[in-house]
Amino acid sequence: MKTLGRPEIRVDSLEKVTGHAKYTADLCPGNALIAGVYHSTIAHGLVRRVDTGAAEAVPGVVRVITCFDAPDIMFPTAGHPWSTVESHQDICDRKLLNAHVRYYGDDVAAVIAEDEIALRRALELIKVEYDEYPACLTPEDAMAEGAVQLHERFPGNVLRHTEYTLGDYDAAIKEPGLVVFEDEFDTPVIQHCHIEPPVSWAYTENGRIVVVAATQIPHIVRRIIGQALGIPWGRVRVIKPYLGGGFGNRQDALYEPLNAWLATMTGGRPVRLEISREETFTSTRTRHAMSFKMITHVRPTGRLVARRLWCVANGGAYASHGHAVVANATTSYRQLYQDEKAIKVDTTSVYTNLAVAGAMRAYGIPQMNFACESHMDNIARGLGLDPVEFRRMNMMKEGFVDPLNGITCRSWGLDACIAAGREHVEWDKKRALTSVGNLRRGVGCAIFSYKTGVYPISLETSASRVVLNQDGSVQVQMGATEIGQGADTVFAQMAAETLGIDISDVHIVTTQDTDVAPYDPGCYASRQSYVSGMGLKATCELLRSKILDYAAKMLATIPDALDIEEGNIVDSRTGQRRTGLSEVATEAFYSLEDARHLTAEVSNQCKDNAFSFGACFAEVEVDIKLCKVKILNIIDVHDSGRILNPRTAEGQVHGGMSMALGYALSEQMLFDRKTGRLLNGNFLDYKLPTALDTPELCCAFADTWEPTGPYGNKALGEPPAIPATAAVRNAILHATGVGLGELPMTPERLFTAFKATGLEG
Amino acid sequence: MKTLGRPEIRVDSLEKVTGHAKYTADLCPGNALIAGVYHSTIAHGLVRRVDTGAAEAVPGVVRVITCFDAPDIMFPTAGHPWSTVESHQDICDRKLLNAHVRYYGDDVAAVIAEDEIALRRALELIKVEYDEYPACLTPEDAMAEGAVQLHERFPGNVLRHTEYTLGDYDAAIKEPGLVVFEDEFDTPVIQHCHIEPPVSWAYTENGRIVVVAATQIPHIVRRIIGQALGIPWGRVRVIKPYLGGGFGNRQDALYEPLNAWLATMTGGRPVRLEISREETFTSTRTRHAMSFKMITHVRPTGRLVARRLWCVANGGAYASHGHAVVANATTSYRQLYQDEKAIKVDTTSVYTNLAVAGAMRAYGIPQMNFACESHMDNIARGLGLDPVEFRRMNMMKEGFVDPLNGITCRSWGLDACIAAGREHVEWDKKRALTSVGNLRRGVGCAIFSYKTGVYPISLETSASRVVLNQDGSVQVQMGATEIGQGADTVFAQMAAETLGIDISDVHIVTTQDTDVAPYDPGCYASRQSYVSGMGLKATCELLRSKILDYAAKMLATIPDALDIEEGNIVDSRTGQRRTGLSEVATEAFYSLEDARHLTAEVSNQCKDNAFSFGACFAEVEVDIKLCKVKILNIIDVHDSGRILNPRTAEGQVHGGMSMALGYALSEQMLFDRKTGRLLNGNFLDYKLPTALDTPELCCAFADTWEPTGPYGNKALGEPPAIPATAAVRNAILHATGVGLGELPMTPERLFTAFKATGLEG
Repeated sequence: MKTLGRPEIRVDSLEKVTGHAKYTADLCPGNALIAGVYHSTIAHGLVRRVDTGAAEAVPGVVRVITCFDAPDIMFPTAGHPWSTVESHQDICDRKLLNAHVRYYGDDVAAVIAEDEIALRRALELIKVEYDEYPACLTPEDAMAEGAVQLHERFPGNVLRHTEYTLGDYDAAIKEPGLVVFEDEFDTPVIQHCHIEPPVSWAYTENGRIVVVAATQIPHIVRRIIGQALGIPWGRVRVIKPYLGGGFGNRQDALYEPLNAWLATMTGGRPVRLEISREETFTSTRTRHAMSFKMITHVRPTGRLVARRLWCVANGGAYASHGHAVVANATTSYRQLYQDEKAIKVDTTSVYTNLAVAGAMRAYGIPQMNFACESHMDNIARGLGLDPVEFRRMNMMKEGFVDPLNGITCRSWGLDACIAAGREHVEWDKKRALTSVGNLRRGVGCAIFSYKTGVYPISLETSASRVVLNQDGSVQVQMGATEIGQGADTVFAQMAAETLGIDISDVHIVTTQDTDVAPYDPGCYASRQSYVSGMGLKATCELLRSKILDYAAKMLATIPDALDIEEGNIVDSRTGQRRTGLSEVATEAFYSLEDARHLTAEVSNQCKDNAFSFGACFAEVEVDIKLCKVKILNIIDVHDSGRILNPRTAEGQVHGGMSMALGYALSEQMLFDRKTGRLLNGNFLDYKLPTALDTPELCCAFADTWEPTGPYGNKALGEPPAIPATAAVRNAILHATGVGLGELPMTPERLFTAFKATGLEG
Repeated sequence: MKTLGRPEIRVDSLEKVTGHAKYTADLCPGNALIAGVYHSTIAHGLVRRVDTGAAEAVPGVVRVITCFDAPDIMFPTAGHPWSTVESHQDICDRKLLNAHVRYYGDDVAAVIAEDEIALRRALELIKVEYDEYPACLTPEDAMAEGAVQLHERFPGNVLRHTEYTLGDYDAAIKEPGLVVFEDEFDTPVIQHCHIEPPVSWAYTENGRIVVVAATQIPHIVRRIIGQALGIPWGRVRVIKPYLGGGFGNRQDALYEPLNAWLATMTGGRPVRLEISREETFTSTRTRHAMSFKMITHVRPTGRLVARRLWCVANGGAYASHGHAVVANATTSYRQLYQDEKAIKVDTTSVYTNLAVAGAMRAYGIPQMNFACESHMDNIARGLGLDPVEFRRMNMMKEGFVDPLNGITCRSWGLDACIAAGREHVEWDKKRALTSVGNLRRGVGCAIFSYKTGVYPISLETSASRVVLNQDGSVQVQMGATEIGQGADTVFAQMAAETLGIDISDVHIVTTQDTDVAPYDPGCYASRQSYVSGMGLKATCELLRSKILDYAAKMLATIPDALDIEEGNIVDSRTGQRRTGLSEVATEAFYSLEDARHLTAEVSNQCKDNAFSFGACFAEVEVDIKLCKVKILNIIDVHDSGRILNPRTAEGQVHGGMSMALGYALSEQMLFDRKTGRLLNGNFLDYKLPTALDTPELCCAFADTWEPTGPYGNKALGEPPAIPATAAVRNAILHATGVGLGELPMTPERLFTAFKATGLEG
């Protein structure tokens, strides 16, 4: 490959570092009105009355709308493609504004104003009377006898409970001589912390609604707005400019449906709805807090025989992605390690009166991986085995076929990842050391597997369009979305590679406008380079054949005699230049005999999937007295098939590792236990790691080739957020002998744990 | 036809009457800078020095740029598709800012500022020193010995001179007994007077330049910006929102190239360049002033034997559309009437130090038609023949093939138009009357022919894309542009017709964005319903076949057994509903087995042309003492093939008639004869007819079917601007015996003419 595999600079890098890149708010018209949301100040109850009089009297206030004005339509928010099977559709459990408020921060009313000052004053003057219910903030409380029900259709506040067994679990555990390990783990509520806040602006056009929004999923948001407003989906247009990160928070419809509705009441002026950082914390989406119980039956040699898993997820006040996140988590537990005989899984998603949990990078697996990989280290420790060798004995191998969904492991670099990580931290040498004193050192590791895209559970389809310009450059129009991850760069490389042109001649349309963008559900599930890449490759191949047809006619030869190389039409045998691609393009545009706009569009359905893998190895130093953890060395080694761009891949890994370290050591959303009010919804109190908190992050890649991937590639986007959390936890265990079961591993938690085990520095 | 032919309400009517429709300026970001142009205050000379110091010192001024900073690149501005033949390319004769200024109002410098106040103050503080040349405001002056040359490549200031003869003219005129008529005519400089001023805003993105602009020709403006800035065309993106009229002024690149360049120097902020009404008059484009000399040899019976035509056009300071406008004018003279033996044509386009002439509705033919139809009436009068019968004897008939370009008359409603107009004004009765006294009445008529599009002189190609939405509605994406004329409505009708759905389910993308819009050169030459309509029909037929293929698979039948009617898939024999189009669409989007985004795109080259025809009949009352003309009754009858929408067609005719009446009676741009300064560049002094000045406008259509048109249709957009001018002139001739040779026929001109002929009321 010529362009793919090279560390091309991001196609949008100059724009972004110079501040030229136009994001949603940058493009908002100067005459736009501004809107804001009045949020519930109780965690659960009914709005009795909203007094809007004082707010309406504020000069500059255009309109005050309450939950009693909103359409009586329940809609879903999850960024899944529509399903024609009703039981597979996302849960409709909220309205644009809710009279039944279900968490502290729920949306009760909205104000449209001429300017920010009028808006803020009006929001302060809204008075709401509630009938308040007791708040249930934990799954236990919510499932308890007599708990107030959040949603009519969900008795006991259980959103969904699933159970399955592979093999004969009851028989398997009767094998004599098995050692049994039991652990429990808890993960906190955290948030995505994308830099650009949720923002959109909307207006009407020809009886249709146009919403310009910072979203990962413009085509899906279009459909959800149609559902929420009760209008045909074709009457909605969603436009996504440059985006400042999503990490799954924007894989939901957030405030776009409300903004769309507000646009119908401004007399034609655009209206902007921008959510503050505080509101982003309170009222968008979070990573599910999950609690796990694991019982594992293992032979003293280390071979896993049978496992039992209970997982309960705190979904917050609305379903959002529903049971899918938890199901994904437990599936990964089943896939990463292979029990010889049986596995039994029990999974529950519960509604509570907390901020709404939704999709977040790696979709349930960071929670599960922390639990799984902590549990595995505990087992290895209990059996006196090397944690690496114990893992290698039991982990998924090449050729694995998931018995429940048929996903097959055709490329497998997991062992290579482990080898590279092991060497990087000098595992064998350091593992042999025992640390004493106040500053203790240890090494730990964690491994993971990760699917690519959502096939076969859901639909995987992607369309793209490539258009030849007069100068021999091309426009690449994807339905798939650049959200800061570098997708546009890799798409541009793919187009350059397949078309035989320079990447500088690929102009990728970074804005998806549902009126004109090909259909692709969007950015999630690390699907784009794989699923959308397949489609783009097919599109470029089609355009290439059209170009060669036209060139052959011009040159009085057959298409097979020609090829495209470095923007030239060359003799396919000798490589000699016959003419320039720009000459062919210009002739095709303007020929008086045979003018054609050379374009190609392919809508491609992907019916495959591939496992990505990786390992993290970390060395830490624990200050026992100060209960502080310092990361001395850490490496992620990923098997994502052929790496399409080492530079952007490294960026993805660094970002994911940073998230995993924040998850490990500092991040958590803290709620008042009585009122459910978020206590640290800002960047001062929510401890997102800063550059100063972040160690040198190392990364490497296993060199594999995924045969189902368009260019040998498979998932890379989300995986880096997975393994570092458990690797650090296991390194602390190695250093101190204390294995934590709860995240984040703050000094406070370490103090408690050290004290409980009598550890002293 | 079900939808076509019906008076559908404009698809954008509600948006426009409620003020919701977003035009270019409405969408300008709130953080945009604002730019303005410093215009030359002499008609011809060299800029010696520009003092920008005081302007730069104004608080809020970001940048002052002069002609000495502009790229040293000559570029063309005409909205023609590119030609791969260099001699056929438009003339490159101006830079973004010009140190050699060639008219009063030429572009010397530009200012970028934070706000309008800073901008205006800075523009006032710019000081320019010139070396001034004498100004040549007329072709005679410009072609005179010793006149200062405007452009290096054009000695004698002749942009182009062409001559040709059909038949043996010298022999033909020797026929004994021929009567010879000789006339001269002059037409003024007028302007389009579209309501929305030229406005654009621009920014950079990924090393490319994005220009949002009020233009008729986004794809061509993209190319011209590329040329003007010396960058590859693929690095430019032009976006056209709703547009408030163009009439040909926006068939040029106006200030978009300058705006594009300014966007490269703002540090990333968008910059808006909006031209005032005064600047629009001074510094955009005008209708060419033309002078004609005609000598016609005719038998006493009225049969035309041989004609001689001289036409000289005042092109102003830059070539813009070059010789094409004048050539088009003289071609129409050749086509409308058929000499039995010969015609000899001599045409000259001249550079002068006046505002730049370019394209304007009907592209030279209103000038020619005034001269031609005045001349014909003079001949009929001289021979004592009925002007209608004289015309019928000599005019183009069905089956005519133009010997020079092969354009063939396959549908011919000209005689029907004449008959309907004649009846409407009671021609035979009123023509027989002789008017005396102060208030004199008369009837007059004029006829015309008009080509559709530009084939075979230039390229005619059009691409469109139609995409099926989940709800069974479609997005129609045209490269062709809605500019206020109603094209979107007719396109929507075409799509509804061919797809078998309701027009309300056709969502037409009114914005052309060259990054994503299919290629079509744009709106001019009355080409869109014909050329672009052909392409759209082919696209809809392709989508229809894809839909039926998919539906057949769903219904386990063959595509031929199915049809689409009123949004349903029906049995093609019985018409019975089998399923809904929305069901097919949703299944196609989301099928787990066979998901496809059903879309179609066709790039269609048109290699045909068709003559439209029409006649205007007018009855006037002339107040001899006050020298005022009152129109008592006026009708345009058009043969434009099948009328696709009688309501929008009527709107086109009314608008065109109003323009023709303004041309006849009041409109002219007046220039100071010494300095070349425009004296009436505003709506107070430039006498555009208002509603109060406009009589009841009648219109009717001949019912013909053009076999080459996609739906039996041919040109209608421009023709209504043609015949009313001469019809009024000829009615005045009938009423008063005074035939004017100059436009506009103001009271001042009538006074002079009446006085010269001794006419008294």
